[in-house]
Amino acid sequence: MNFGVIGYGYWGPNVVRNLATLEGTQVLAIADLDAGARQRAQRAYPAIHVTADAREVLTSTKIDAIAVISPVWTHYELTKAALENGKHVFVEKPFTANTAQGQELVELAEKRNLKIMVDHTFLFTGAVKKISQLIDEGALGKLYYYDSTRVNLGLLQHDVNVLWDLAPHDLSIMDHLIKETPEAVVATGEKHLNDYEDVAYMTLYFPGKTIAHINVNWLSPVKVRMTLIGGERKMVVWNDLVADEKVRVYDRGVQTTTQEGMYKLLVNYRSGDMYAPRIEPAEALTQELKYFVDCITTGTDPINDGRAGLRVVRMLEAATKSLSTRGSLVKL
Amino acid sequence: MNFGVIGYGYWGPNVVRNLATLEGTQVLAIADLDAGARQRAQRAYPAIHVTADAREVLTSTKIDAIAVISPVWTHYELTKAALENGKHVFVEKPFTANTAQGQELVELAEKRNLKIMVDHTFLFTGAVKKISQLIDEGALGKLYYYDSTRVNLGLLQHDVNVLWDLAPHDLSIMDHLIKETPEAVVATGEKHLNDYEDVAYMTLYFPGKTIAHINVNWLSPVKVRMTLIGGERKMVVWNDLVADEKVRVYDRGVQTTTQEGMYKLLVNYRSGDMYAPRIEPAEALTQELKYFVDCITTGTDPINDGRAGLRVVRMLEAATKSLSTRGSLVKL
Amino acid sequence: MNFGVIGYGYWGPNVVRNLATLEGTQVLAIADLDAGARQRAQRAYPAIHVTADAREVLTSTKIDAIAVISPVWTHYELTKAALENGKHVFVEKPFTANTAQGQELVELAEKRNLKIMVDHTFLFTGAVKKISQLIDEGALGKLYYYDSTRVNLGLLQHDVNVLWDLAPHDLSIMDHLIKETPEAVVATGEKHLNDYEDVAYMTLYFPGKTIAHINVNWLSPVKVRMTLIGGERKMVVWNDLVADEKVRVYDRGVQTTTQEGMYKLLVNYRSGDMYAPRIEPAEALTQELKYFVDCITTGTDPINDGRAGLRVVRMLEAATKSLSTRGSLVKL
Amino acid sequence: MNFGVIGYGYWGPNVVRNLATLEGTQVLAIADLDAGARQRAQRAYPAIHVTADAREVLTSTKIDAIAVISPVWTHYELTKAALENGKHVFVEKPFTANTAQGQELVELAEKRNLKIMVDHTFLFTGAVKKISQLIDEGALGKLYYYDSTRVNLGLLQHDVNVLWDLAPHDLSIMDHLIKETPEAVVATGEKHLNDYEDVAYMTLYFPGKTIAHINVNWLSPVKVRMTLIGGERKMVVWNDLVADEKVRVYDRGVQTTTQEGMYKLLVNYRSGDMYAPRIEPAEALTQELKYFVDCITTGTDPINDGRAGLRVVRMLEAATKSLSTRGSLVKL
Repeated sequence: MNFGVIGYGYWGPNVVRNLATLEGTQVLAIADLDAGARQRAQRAYPAIHVTADAREVLTSTKIDAIAVISPVWTHYELTKAALENGKHVFVEKPFTANTAQGQELVELAEKRNLKIMVDHTFLFTGAVKKISQLIDEGALGKLYYYDSTRVNLGLLQHDVNVLWDLAPHDLSIMDHLIKETPEAVVATGEKHLNDYEDVAYMTLYFPGKTIAHINVNWLSPVKVRMTLIGGERKMVVWNDLVADEKVRVYDRGVQTTTQEGMYKLLVNYRSGDMYAPRIEPAEALTQELKYFVDCITTGTDPINDGRAGLRVVRMLEAATKSLSTRGSLVKL
Repeated sequence: MNFGVIGYGYWGPNVVRNLATLEGTQVLAIADLDAGARQRAQRAYPAIHVTADAREVLTSTKIDAIAVISPVWTHYELTKAALENGKHVFVEKPFTANTAQGQELVELAEKRNLKIMVDHTFLFTGAVKKISQLIDEGALGKLYYYDSTRVNLGLLQHDVNVLWDLAPHDLSIMDHLIKETPEAVVATGEKHLNDYEDVAYMTLYFPGKTIAHINVNWLSPVKVRMTLIGGERKMVVWNDLVADEKVRVYDRGVQTTTQEGMYKLLVNYRSGDMYAPRIEPAEALTQELKYFVDCITTGTDPINDGRAGLRVVRMLEAATKSLSTRGSLVKL
Repeated sequence: MNFGVIGYGYWGPNVVRNLATLEGTQVLAIADLDAGARQRAQRAYPAIHVTADAREVLTSTKIDAIAVISPVWTHYELTKAALENGKHVFVEKPFTANTAQGQELVELAEKRNLKIMVDHTFLFTGAVKKISQLIDEGALGKLYYYDSTRVNLGLLQHDVNVLWDLAPHDLSIMDHLIKETPEAVVATGEKHLNDYEDVAYMTLYFPGKTIAHINVNWLSPVKVRMTLIGGERKMVVWNDLVADEKVRVYDRGVQTTTQEGMYKLLVNYRSGDMYAPRIEPAEALTQELKYFVDCITTGTDPINDGRAGLRVVRMLEAATKSLSTRGSLVKL
Repeated sequence: MNFGVIGYGYWGPNVVRNLATLEGTQVLAIADLDAGARQRAQRAYPAIHVTADAREVLTSTKIDAIAVISPVWTHYELTKAALENGKHVFVEKPFTANTAQGQELVELAEKRNLKIMVDHTFLFTGAVKKISQLIDEGALGKLYYYDSTRVNLGLLQHDVNVLWDLAPHDLSIMDHLIKETPEAVVATGEKHLNDYEDVAYMTLYFPGKTIAHINVNWLSPVKVRMTLIGGERKMVVWNDLVADEKVRVYDRGVQTTTQEGMYKLLVNYRSGDMYAPRIEPAEALTQELKYFVDCITTGTDPINDGRAGLRVVRMLEAATKSLSTRGSLVKL
């Protein structure tokens, strides 16, 4: 399978390196508007055609699939052109800048019988795969909450707020783990340095009483990547920054029973063992790109297809609306 | 100074132990409705009068001050009676069950020239004193945000939600550190086990663009007590669960400048040293009670007086209102 | 059972508090040479006879057992007198100042049919009980090594080196967990501030190729209480300073097999799950004293009897000899 | 400056990558006996001559310096040949398999006026540079001890014990930081799986009462890289596994004074602030190779020259001798 890659900035080199290494895939062309990026690409891959003109990549008849690894405001146009040229698309997250764009691309891909994969890389980490397995097996029981903190001293973005920059990770993971669609969003936050929120908080209400919360912050002195998932039977703490034992499963919980005629609930606390399952150390992006090729070959819709990307964009859009009105509830 | 103590449950014994040890104070009477509590009190302090009848304590002519260490729904009535009997009052937090009660008690105390101290114990810890000093000296610069997480597998309360149980700590600390009054509150959360929220999130907007956020949860498998305070010049991480170096000060930050004619902001990141100042290990409650006696003796209003307690209650009340409407903005 | 307690310094109050609380035991007398200690004891326990003269305690006919909670150089004399007066003895660790003393006391107790329990408190913690259970069940397989670090900024002792102060903990735990007797000891260390080593390292060779190592240090800026136990099948990390998950069991290991005619060993690494069993939170000293009373009542020899205490003293004595010759091997 | 590299296994690719990137250096040839390694090298660097025959590299007249990145038992022969062919040598640690070899190479290099640099990479990390600066400035005061733990579940070596595999790191760092030469070594350890010790402990006595201890272990379930350095004025804890704040400086210590006629020492404990200086994040190997080129150009002897490498080998040799006699003191 022959790939073209558009965008060779921060993440593009990783995509190219993986596609160049995977069996059965090769990169034929790379496009980037930046001369420095083109120079780095050409030096690293003398045999690949490197160009400033994305059109050359999009229209090449030798290319089967395009990886769009460029800023979010370019995703719609580039993905649309790729699809119109009959190419499958692997596109960076967030999928598009708004819901309408995403909807249009999803429909276009379906009409053309082409695959879109949105780069929700975390779904392919050992940690998320393990948590997903635990939830699917019912080990956690009914889910009470999903609470994620993703903060660090980050590069301020000049075109999006911190939600659009950091929350797509959490939203795509949450969307994958919780098999429901949230019904409403509340978001709060503040702008301190430019016109975009640098600190933001997002609550998602699910129909079945699961509640999700996401804390994102570009102004934190320390880096935190911590997710708590509370279930009726077990609870999970995922700390992505530790080398070992990223995922910890706690046999802890609260259960209530009401006895006939009793005024008070009977609350039972369990405080049992903790265990940290072994996590597969394989590189997530490698797994994801391999899976993309498989999906194209077998005609399967990826778990992280355009619809999944669209769900994340819809939540971001609603959250931004809520943010601008200081926390009003926005239905999804 | 002679004290009476009403309530000898979980926290009462600590108050009695401290008052019995402090120079110049003694406890003359202890009241508790529970026979087991009375038995424990009498065994530990054979010389103190122990009774089931709070009236005996409230009306004793030998007693100068009353410590009200009972459930929140009793605070108003007991504090009012104490004030009416001419006693100073040390009252557990949250101060009262609603704003109206708090307002009335503050006015009554002022009219009678009596002191109310609300037991915002954390203000007297070495950690909060050190952070307070850093903020007052201007070491942090303009405050961007105050973000606190206080979660654990907690005792479900049968009469209040998790905000009223856990957030008074954070709100009283925040109120003390940030010298402004928030203008509005947004709160979200969910009930899973009974009629009270067991997971809740609270955002407070301040006029000067400081934003505060509080994450409280009774259903967390792990205990977290972590506060991040971001300032323009320095940032603080306070982890109350570590034995040493609870307070860390980071010489990290983001500063922006705009040059004439430049399209982009110039953003400068600082990533310098961290230091953990030595924290005074003295017991907070001891310091607080000593300070209460000093305030009474010298006629000074405590930093944690009835008005401070009332500000916390006002925020809790507003948050509960917001919670019940899924995050609508409630003005303060 | 009536107790007399000799020594009311740092640890004595804990012993008295427990004996005063346990069902079926009471403290009749406390002796301490220090007037301040006696004052504290009398104020806390008005009903107990407090005296400067240990003889009064040792010879009282109402007393069944003596707790000797005084400095190590007094243990021999006091324990001997207690035994001669027909009392059972609970004695602080290390048991005695040398092997000869310990040997004599063990024989005396046996002749008189009295029990000696040496206060190896750690054996009664949830952590050691859990590790002991794992080893006894064979979960760890053959033991490769026992490696313990016990360092902090400690009170320099004026009469013993750091080995006699800190290593009794590790040696008593090790002696309990590893069912073998070490055959030889090597110890190294250095004196920096007075005539006793403040930093020391101790290696113990066991017949079956298990090796133990103990690192003790009074001059460490941070406190470390960490023990690694490596077995053929599983390995344990015990960090006594964390609130939760003190004991972690790793399904990790190295196994070798040799194939016929193969030059190299075939080494297999296992890197599986980790789990942290729930640890019983009960106070160790309470468990230990309850067990002491049981042992006396039922005539059972405690696991931490005089012989166990003597084994620890023998290792300390040998280590000190090795230390003085800079690491020469001392046979046990 | 033109380089030849011998050995393209685990570490060789990093050396080649750095030399290929540094300004003013290039790699002309790579030799490796393993066909797979040669294939990887050729694919990554199509323009470099790749060969199975080290002689081609050693004798090439275009090459100025040789990097010997092969097993320790080949260092002597390859380095000697390189020097005899007039090449400067960058050689992997440990420098040689014994003292005699190292001594001969040092003398040969000096006679030929060629530079040897032993790859003590850690000396070029931000952490060691910072600690070195602190010691040289006198911030720590007189050094009491250097205590390092370097354990993990490691690849068992088939030709050397764990001391020769892991301790060169610690010994080269210690040699650099403590400006004295130790006078004697004691080492203990045990073999569990093959003919080489997999667990070992090493004590080094310095003339000025500084004591060093190194704990190395291939059979640890967890990875630890922790060094404690205790000084009279300040103390350092270096944890190399944390992302931030690897080096912590504690204003803690113990000082003694003796007053005339006083029986006891007066001991003062200080427990002040801790600070974590910002650590330069530059890649150590890049810094080291740049420095190598500078040393050759300017004729300077590197801090990690053949003599430094020889000092480390001498300590390893003495430790191995001590190990084989279960801890007997071996003079250096």
